[in-house]
Amino acid sequence: MQAFQYYSPTKLVFGLDCLKDNLSKELQIRGYKKVLMTYGGGSIKKTGVYDKVMAELKDAGCEVVELGGIEPNPRVTSVEKGAALCKEHNVDLVIAVGGGSTMDASKHICAAAYYNGAAWDLVLDASKIKKALPLFTVNTIAATGSEYDHAGVITNLETKEKLPIGSVLLWPQVSFLDPSFTYSVPDSQTIAGSCDIMSHFFEAYFVRDLGTIAQGIIEAALKNVIKYTPVALKEHDNYEARANLLWTSTLGCNGISQLGSSVTAFPCHAIEHEVSAYYDITHGIGLAVITPRLLRYFLEKDPSVSPRYVDLACNVFGLKKEDYKSEAELIEAGLVALEDFYKSLGIPENFTKIGITDEHFKAMAAHVNKYWIAPLSLFFVPFTEDDVVEVLKRCL
Amino acid sequence: MQAFQYYSPTKLVFGLDCLKDNLSKELQIRGYKKVLMTYGGGSIKKTGVYDKVMAELKDAGCEVVELGGIEPNPRVTSVEKGAALCKEHNVDLVIAVGGGSTMDASKHICAAAYYNGAAWDLVLDASKIKKALPLFTVNTIAATGSEYDHAGVITNLETKEKLPIGSVLLWPQVSFLDPSFTYSVPDSQTIAGSCDIMSHFFEAYFVRDLGTIAQGIIEAALKNVIKYTPVALKEHDNYEARANLLWTSTLGCNGISQLGSSVTAFPCHAIEHEVSAYYDITHGIGLAVITPRLLRYFLEKDPSVSPRYVDLACNVFGLKKEDYKSEAELIEAGLVALEDFYKSLGIPENFTKIGITDEHFKAMAAHVNKYWIAPLSLFFVPFTEDDVVEVLKRCL
Repeated sequence: MQAFQYYSPTKLVFGLDCLKDNLSKELQIRGYKKVLMTYGGGSIKKTGVYDKVMAELKDAGCEVVELGGIEPNPRVTSVEKGAALCKEHNVDLVIAVGGGSTMDASKHICAAAYYNGAAWDLVLDASKIKKALPLFTVNTIAATGSEYDHAGVITNLETKEKLPIGSVLLWPQVSFLDPSFTYSVPDSQTIAGSCDIMSHFFEAYFVRDLGTIAQGIIEAALKNVIKYTPVALKEHDNYEARANLLWTSTLGCNGISQLGSSVTAFPCHAIEHEVSAYYDITHGIGLAVITPRLLRYFLEKDPSVSPRYVDLACNVFGLKKEDYKSEAELIEAGLVALEDFYKSLGIPENFTKIGITDEHFKAMAAHVNKYWIAPLSLFFVPFTEDDVVEVLKRCL
Repeated sequence: MQAFQYYSPTKLVFGLDCLKDNLSKELQIRGYKKVLMTYGGGSIKKTGVYDKVMAELKDAGCEVVELGGIEPNPRVTSVEKGAALCKEHNVDLVIAVGGGSTMDASKHICAAAYYNGAAWDLVLDASKIKKALPLFTVNTIAATGSEYDHAGVITNLETKEKLPIGSVLLWPQVSFLDPSFTYSVPDSQTIAGSCDIMSHFFEAYFVRDLGTIAQGIIEAALKNVIKYTPVALKEHDNYEARANLLWTSTLGCNGISQLGSSVTAFPCHAIEHEVSAYYDITHGIGLAVITPRLLRYFLEKDPSVSPRYVDLACNVFGLKKEDYKSEAELIEAGLVALEDFYKSLGIPENFTKIGITDEHFKAMAAHVNKYWIAPLSLFFVPFTEDDVVEVLKRCL
């Protein structure tokens, strides 16, 4: 069992109608008065979430400045706008209302609000984050888990970079999770969200030394997504399905599923973020295309990692050892079950179908090694840049 | 899935030699200068833990006041002493070095240090806790999980009461967990500790609506204790076993294993705390005697709760449905496996063997209903006081 430090101070408020009275109470306890409210394309106005947040802000006597239009794969240009608003209006709290993109950009805004320089500097060197505005989140989609971690991913279109930003100062103070807010999420995003959730848990699962409790959490999480995604797609307002997906997503990036394990380098995320930095595809879809190829490649490169693949087959997909002639067949059946699950969600078969070519693969591989949170040598099976290129080629 | 609020702000520092440099760093970051160090019977002086803590306190330039001799089943009289020392010396941090008793008493001391009245008042009415000193813990035994929750249990021998105290102000700020500190724990306490850990997870398992992720955590935790307790007893310095037991215990009372589930009334703890309030027996042993009787009684009273017993048999004890003729046989085999595990640890067969009679059972049952955290009606199967008496009688 590996050593660790763990600190996860966000207060979670989860359940149907959980904003009601609770949001205004949490604002009042802390005395916040000037709030920057951030959101994306404006779906929160159609679904009524905007009005619910505004009513609570009004009850708490807060003045509100707004920044809408935060993009999927959020841009550093939006962060600059938000930070400028915070400085101009002396904002004392940011409330992010939306999905991972809005929350990620808002974390960066909280840090940039106290920084005199280009916001991108803080991505390139997080030690420059010395102070940050507090952040509340109101999450509207089960996906990134950004509501319960201290990091985000920001895109710089100028430099073609999509990089993580993280600091202990960026934990949300309070995160509100109302599963009913996810009823109206378009199917395509529910699907991409579920793929993202699964990927977070896969990243923590395919590590050399897996914590025993971590394994229990991860397998329960993966089973949850596999069980409840089809239910949510069939009945958009199935509370039980939406609640389980939302809560599972919240635990995905929080670190709890990694405690006691070897450090994970988040290899699939590292590779996918490069792809979506170049092509602006949906993160979850990119992950689903890469995942089975990456897992197969790991096993090919180092067959000694096979026990985890047996766990995947038996504990996640419920296959029984006695039904297979060999361990290899069992493992293959587990991987096929995973691919079948992605297919059942209508995930594109490969990158070629979504217009990606091998043009930038070498540059992407170099980026993964240079900028991601851990070097290629810390992947489940140590990688070279050539290995990254090979996995990307298999995705074509 | 049930609504919840969750807040768990303690920073955990876990691993071999985790005190080294980290404790002094955490003290210095926060600027603490006058520390009350609390501990129990003094075993920390024999094991060297005392010296390690002192070295870090010295490195951080702290002045230290000491309160040793905190009892198992800690007394409110010790709390009064600690609070008086805090007031007298203007202490700005309490460090609890020891097991659950030391940590529980220290939480109460942190609160009582700012209270002008009898410390017991704060047990009877937690709303009187308006402010509390910050607390660090250095845990030396895998048992209560007090290092990662905001509650404790305090005994008043005068009034024959053993009651919980809890407040959001009582979360430890930082908890240090070095598995090697538990190598020297006497076998009797390792055993009692493991029974306590299991009981915490059973309390969260036997609830009406069990969260799916919660179930994964609980089953992994129970398997951990069953696997690693015998290993730790055989090889006292088996790091892997001690680390897994310690980490499992830390998650036991933190609330994470209850999220998404119906509220648990902690029925077994409620009943046992009454027994050890009257007889001063070891908490973990009392729990192990009561648990199988309580579980059997629940099922007798309401057979509709049987699915969880099937989970226990299959997911925790690895029994296979196809090996049993009926669900009833499978369930019975699971309960026998649990009893056999307790027996293998040498747990006394019943209360009679440890000198307990039925003399106070009625008074105990009345106390459970009056003072515990949730009423008898919220037990897994709703109870009356007569039911409590009946379970206690079956323990004779």
